[in-house]
Amino acid sequence: MSPQSSRKIIAVDMDEVIADALGEHLARYNRDFPPVPGDPHFPSPLTRADLHGRRLWQAVPASRHAALDAYFRNEDFFRNLAVFPDAARVLLRLQSHYDIFIASAAMEVPSSFTAKYDWLAEHFPFIPTSHIVFCGDKSILRADFLIDDNTRQLAAFHGEGILFTSPANIHETAYRRVNNWQEVETLFLP
Amino acid sequence: MSPQSSRKIIAVDMDEVIADALGEHLARYNRDFPPVPGDPHFPSPLTRADLHGRRLWQAVPASRHAALDAYFRNEDFFRNLAVFPDAARVLLRLQSHYDIFIASAAMEVPSSFTAKYDWLAEHFPFIPTSHIVFCGDKSILRADFLIDDNTRQLAAFHGEGILFTSPANIHETAYRRVNNWQEVETLFLP
Repeated sequence: MSPQSSRKIIAVDMDEVIADALGEHLARYNRDFPPVPGDPHFPSPLTRADLHGRRLWQAVPASRHAALDAYFRNEDFFRNLAVFPDAARVLLRLQSHYDIFIASAAMEVPSSFTAKYDWLAEHFPFIPTSHIVFCGDKSILRADFLIDDNTRQLAAFHGEGILFTSPANIHETAYRRVNNWQEVETLFLP
Repeated sequence: MSPQSSRKIIAVDMDEVIADALGEHLARYNRDFPPVPGDPHFPSPLTRADLHGRRLWQAVPASRHAALDAYFRNEDFFRNLAVFPDAARVLLRLQSHYDIFIASAAMEVPSSFTAKYDWLAEHFPFIPTSHIVFCGDKSILRADFLIDDNTRQLAAFHGEGILFTSPANIHETAYRRVNNWQEVETLFLP
């Protein structure tokens, strides 16, 4: 066994872990459904703080769910997402000590493939394409750790799941939690 | 542990295992570089038999490699490939006894993502999208078996590699070999 192959493997989710998909979703939603000052239900723009413990779909009337779905299917949705603070710096540093794979459940939104690939090339050029995985069920990943905001994926995963805080998962207690990339750095490079 | 999760996992490559990418490649090559009867180098169309132990690139003059590369990058290349005989029938049957994941090294040809996804939906509709993986290095797969024509991927894989015969790998001896899907059926459902 080569020294390389004895390194621990960290798999890292994209949306809500390195890519601010929720921010883009909120921006498009607030653009298309502008708040109505004085309205009891929609007096102000929807923010991350409004989602405490809920997914976006749960915070929005059912009549607007189709619009939320359509944003995802727009081919440019995933191309211009903001990068989470410190994600690139910390992953570059982790890469000296661990094998890093980016693992996105992209099969849920097939129109996202190219945008996600191009986004990674732009913001994480140090991740070789051989270490990018577009999958569905993350039970298929052979890795020691998975950093993900989705507890369903962490439950399916066979290594140690690390829950990256997002508004929807704020009440989850079953996994070790990191709130930002500085905490990831401290956890893996103490 | 649920009964479901104790099932063995078989990962299955796409190109040259379930999808006849080489056939499409040869067809496009012979269309654009027609044989010249009587020519000592190119008297007849190139066939699979001409590739015994070689990849297509090794059987073609260097001046034509750029054309071979370009075929791959054409977005429709992977959409209309022929299905290997018995692949669908046998995978459907295997699915009753094993967890089946389709795992393609699609990251090598990013323009192939959508075509490969749509091709699977057409020919293997019984494979849930949650069990499709587009990756690079297949070391990331947590599976018991990988059926692949590429020995580099089988060497990286951590389960048992099964070599699916293709012209390029005909001389390889390091892996258990299957020549067609009937042999896969016999191997896994004796």
